[in-house]
Amino acid sequence: MAEGTIFERLDPIFHPRSVALIGASGKPGKIGRLFVDAFMESGFRELYPVNPGERDILGFQAYPSVLLIPYPVDMAVIITPAATTPAVVKECVAKGVRTIVINTAGFGESGIKGKEAQDEMVRVAREGGARIIGPNCIGIYCPASKLPFLLKQGREAGSVGLVSQSGFFADYLTMIATERGIHFSKAVSCGNESDLTAVDFLEYLGEDPETETIVAYIEGLREGRRFYDAARKISRKKPIILLRGGLTEGGARAAASHTGALAGSRPVWEGVLRHTGIVPASSFEEVLDCLYAFHLQPLPSGARVGIVSGPGGIAVATTDACLELGLGVPQFSPATAEKLRASMPVVGGSVANPIDLSLASLLGPRVFRDAVRILSGEKNIDMILVIAVVGGERLRDLILGAVDGLTTKKPIAVVVMAGTPEAVERDCRTLIASGISAYPDALRAVKALHRLSGYARFRERLQASPDDAAGVRRRRRALPAQGRHIILKAASEGKKVLSEHGAGEVLRLCGIPVAREREAFDEPGFRRALGEIGFPAVIKAGGPELSHKTEKGLVYLDIRDEHEALVAFTEIMDKRKGRETSVLVQEMIRGSRELIIGLVRDRLFGPCVMIGAGGIFSETLKDNTFRAAPIDRQDALDMIDELKCRASLGPFRGMPAADLGRVADILVKVAAMGAEQREIKEIDINPVMISGDRPIAVDALIVLEDE
Amino acid sequence: MAEGTIFERLDPIFHPRSVALIGASGKPGKIGRLFVDAFMESGFRELYPVNPGERDILGFQAYPSVLLIPYPVDMAVIITPAATTPAVVKECVAKGVRTIVINTAGFGESGIKGKEAQDEMVRVAREGGARIIGPNCIGIYCPASKLPFLLKQGREAGSVGLVSQSGFFADYLTMIATERGIHFSKAVSCGNESDLTAVDFLEYLGEDPETETIVAYIEGLREGRRFYDAARKISRKKPIILLRGGLTEGGARAAASHTGALAGSRPVWEGVLRHTGIVPASSFEEVLDCLYAFHLQPLPSGARVGIVSGPGGIAVATTDACLELGLGVPQFSPATAEKLRASMPVVGGSVANPIDLSLASLLGPRVFRDAVRILSGEKNIDMILVIAVVGGERLRDLILGAVDGLTTKKPIAVVVMAGTPEAVERDCRTLIASGISAYPDALRAVKALHRLSGYARFRERLQASPDDAAGVRRRRRALPAQGRHIILKAASEGKKVLSEHGAGEVLRLCGIPVAREREAFDEPGFRRALGEIGFPAVIKAGGPELSHKTEKGLVYLDIRDEHEALVAFTEIMDKRKGRETSVLVQEMIRGSRELIIGLVRDRLFGPCVMIGAGGIFSETLKDNTFRAAPIDRQDALDMIDELKCRASLGPFRGMPAADLGRVADILVKVAAMGAEQREIKEIDINPVMISGDRPIAVDALIVLEDE
Repeated sequence: MAEGTIFERLDPIFHPRSVALIGASGKPGKIGRLFVDAFMESGFRELYPVNPGERDILGFQAYPSVLLIPYPVDMAVIITPAATTPAVVKECVAKGVRTIVINTAGFGESGIKGKEAQDEMVRVAREGGARIIGPNCIGIYCPASKLPFLLKQGREAGSVGLVSQSGFFADYLTMIATERGIHFSKAVSCGNESDLTAVDFLEYLGEDPETETIVAYIEGLREGRRFYDAARKISRKKPIILLRGGLTEGGARAAASHTGALAGSRPVWEGVLRHTGIVPASSFEEVLDCLYAFHLQPLPSGARVGIVSGPGGIAVATTDACLELGLGVPQFSPATAEKLRASMPVVGGSVANPIDLSLASLLGPRVFRDAVRILSGEKNIDMILVIAVVGGERLRDLILGAVDGLTTKKPIAVVVMAGTPEAVERDCRTLIASGISAYPDALRAVKALHRLSGYARFRERLQASPDDAAGVRRRRRALPAQGRHIILKAASEGKKVLSEHGAGEVLRLCGIPVAREREAFDEPGFRRALGEIGFPAVIKAGGPELSHKTEKGLVYLDIRDEHEALVAFTEIMDKRKGRETSVLVQEMIRGSRELIIGLVRDRLFGPCVMIGAGGIFSETLKDNTFRAAPIDRQDALDMIDELKCRASLGPFRGMPAADLGRVADILVKVAAMGAEQREIKEIDINPVMISGDRPIAVDALIVLEDE
Repeated sequence: MAEGTIFERLDPIFHPRSVALIGASGKPGKIGRLFVDAFMESGFRELYPVNPGERDILGFQAYPSVLLIPYPVDMAVIITPAATTPAVVKECVAKGVRTIVINTAGFGESGIKGKEAQDEMVRVAREGGARIIGPNCIGIYCPASKLPFLLKQGREAGSVGLVSQSGFFADYLTMIATERGIHFSKAVSCGNESDLTAVDFLEYLGEDPETETIVAYIEGLREGRRFYDAARKISRKKPIILLRGGLTEGGARAAASHTGALAGSRPVWEGVLRHTGIVPASSFEEVLDCLYAFHLQPLPSGARVGIVSGPGGIAVATTDACLELGLGVPQFSPATAEKLRASMPVVGGSVANPIDLSLASLLGPRVFRDAVRILSGEKNIDMILVIAVVGGERLRDLILGAVDGLTTKKPIAVVVMAGTPEAVERDCRTLIASGISAYPDALRAVKALHRLSGYARFRERLQASPDDAAGVRRRRRALPAQGRHIILKAASEGKKVLSEHGAGEVLRLCGIPVAREREAFDEPGFRRALGEIGFPAVIKAGGPELSHKTEKGLVYLDIRDEHEALVAFTEIMDKRKGRETSVLVQEMIRGSRELIIGLVRDRLFGPCVMIGAGGIFSETLKDNTFRAAPIDRQDALDMIDELKCRASLGPFRGMPAADLGRVADILVKVAAMGAEQREIKEIDINPVMISGDRPIAVDALIVLEDE
């Protein structure tokens, strides 16, 4: 791979002076013709069609082979059948082509044979110093270089960047967006990612000064952690609006046959989205809806919406939608209310938030403009949502008139509810092209504003706490030598699981508060342990790799005296007769609030730390949240705040507030252990009991990696 | 009120032979002019404009007063200012008008004075045998009678009925739908509901033979229980697609200023929706999306989707969307897979579900038709989702060609992703007008199919278990005389809460299993109680109206011997010194799984029964579900199935499956108590412990209604 930053290495790909179109055709109905049409439409000059069966293709001289082109070729776009493509790639490399875009399908996504052929093409290309985009992709759209997609996006360059593992998504989305006046810096369809991947291009777009907003479609990732780190870094300066596919088992099945890549599981992805600041969209339309808001509007300084509505009923339903997504719809300050009252005749309407302009807005639409101007200066709100019942030129003039010359910039979203669906579409396009985000439905506008304010909060939080994953990684080790020794020894003995006592010991060595515990192997030892721990106590079977103790009747809670203790000891010894065993004596921790803290190794993102509500229903109620490890203290506090049970961790039913700083500390340490100790596959501290206000690990499991 | 069924009483309202338009005007820019235009456009003949200042209005003779019209007047539409409206209503009544539509705003929604004027108009109307629609509404659209709304919906009659508390919603939705070829039987905007309400019209549309599908916008209900019963009855034969406003506090605030009605709280509403089969939509656009599916497609026999997609990436994301909503995307049967393979060239595509047609679909769109025809006969799927990348006439011909002459009818939804937004809108309209539900975005299509299959399941379940609320009500009382006596006595003594002992007694009398318990007032009594209950035991303070016992240190769990018991007794007596007190001795119930069963009186729907996951985090994790009481056994089982913790109620961590029949029995009994005993305001059984497999009420609270 070449030297330099990712930007320096990939930027030349977007600026080829000449392109060989291999498999080009002049015949209507052929794919090769679609590409020639697209390059002609975009005005690309140095185009060399290659087709042994045609000599002149729509005015371009055609060559029988790329090797016979008498000029240098920077980029080749291959649209020949799969059987001949590997040979064509060899010729391209021989010709000295540096970028090879393979449109042809039938490689890695189609089975083992296809994968082998694909690997061979990559080998050949790498040897020759060439890079491959695809196969199974439509390549690059770069208006500044006149590189086209197929759907005639037009020649105007803008500042949205796009990277997609689906060719259609890339092609269709850029077409729709440009139709509405939103233009692109670069868009890449990367198909099977045999060589260059979506993450490569994401990093590139992150560095690209021509790109301000990024749109991505991702079905699967081979380098999840690199994606995670790149996204978190990029989101600090540019939003990434992401549509993901293949998150569910069925979706992943479909994705596997499409690009043959991995897809992560949903709860981990949700943590990833929160931690990286990625803006998630759940459909093609939502991607566009977000794009209008993110690309055209400033970031809001909060999450409070002022609603200006023609129809009262829609205003009511829209207020509901705002509140359910966590956006505020607060009352206006007295001064603003006064101005609104003075400016508008409201019979049957209301100047409270939401402002119901009633029929007045149909008869004198100027009230829309006045209301927006007044709200622009209102300090109790951060965003403005207009539900307009007038359309056409009048609407555009009103909205542009309202925002013209304003010094305080709040994001504005306009919902057009006037005229036929065609008229609404036309008006939305006009507004978007004029720099106003516009929607045909209020809920879609609300969702876009919700995403916008969520991203603004992410940016704010990063500014307040600039610590990042790399910073966390540089710190000293969480696990001291003695703890590492316990883990490495167990691993070297081929153990899959640390004994409960061993796991507790490891946590304790990290500075995590663990219930006091002694391990005994015979009755005298047991009596000594009782003396040290005291009553009430918990008596459990110890022994290596012993799980489901409660279900096996090997846990005795709340033992209050020596008599009860000895009964428990005898019963455990009896039940475990003939097996290597020990008996644990643990202090009895009282507390009603239980949490679970754990660590998993995600196949995409590596070690991920988790916190969740504990208790008997924890598996089914699933109140938990994840982050890729390591994390910093603020991340840990954020995770705690994301729990639904958060409110019960404050002062609650006569109990004091849980010391969340100490909970966060456990989370940070567990994450650090997972990040630094590869031998740890899973950690499960269940429960972390809140005793008084203090979190204490009561039971712990550490699972080791298989060799 | 007149005699006859609701249909017989309200139907004449939709068929006036003559209409007086009071406040009509010929002057452009006046609201009165908009109405005249609308009546002219709809072709209504016997129109009598009333305006003392105009003599001829666009060719109609105008009258100075409704009293001076020399012909009978069936309906009056009043658009005069609020100040003069009451006098106009009097004149209408004097004229013998039977239906008075008041468009004018500024009455009940604007404050006490407006409300008084409104009440007076209703009184005058009722005395004269007239009915009022409104004020603050746009009245009735009935194409068969040429009654218009304002937005020129056209004259074609169809079979969708609409009722709305928002005039704009009614006007705009009917306009958009008719633009797309979906037509209406009757649509009513009922405004402030001073007399006739949305529930009246809902019941009417339920009976109306011309109406097959119902759309409703509701902000608040005064007769929640009547709405509930009507909706449940109507949903057995016709779907009701509902957009609600004012569900949240802020939305309700907005709603209050709009129509001055009540709005129910969200969790109760969710239970209402499930129990009544109402199809909920969360935005204007979603109402329309559902309407296309419900009005044009047959009901599916299951929830499994076959996806035929041009683009592979979108197919993957769409599969995710299906699975997340609980729709299946199963594999096809071998015969179908074989047919698909034979029919289509799939390089880079897949004939598994979702079918990825890849580029083949762009070059030879016939593959869409073939795939749809093949899937129509596939037994593993119930619905077909097509994501088309070709548009225009070609698309319509392909889809109509595919469904033409099919004997097995599965619902089809088509997603159009071809061409510009305008082209997509045009194609969707063409398809919808041809009877195919069509969408510009796959997620919207998936959501509509999800609602469709949910409604189909509701219909199926009602057929399997025809029991209804009325049937439940006829059964014998849940609470025997002795239980009623306890409640009535406490109520007559002015108590707000039954003592814990009393509440347990009431439940026991209903046949609900309750932990054994004795109440003691002195030490000898306490010793007797211990003897009867045995160890381990729970010792608590008794006393009337004593709450938060645990927080006050008045509960001693797991007492194992007499010594511990006497310590507890002494401590309780000490803490409660000087107050009326008792000590309860209860058997200690062991069990890990806790539920909460309760009853509330909802301000909209009356007594509502609830079941939820228990435990310390129950308040924040909110895994619970509601129904209006009474309920039948199947309802109770449905409720249990809706809990997220349901999976933990089966065999779980070594515990046996909970006996859900017995849990359902408790729910049915609690619901019945609430429905039949008005003195009960709330019931709270927390926890219902699952001990072994049996549910046992361990702690109960019964709150009584204030006088």
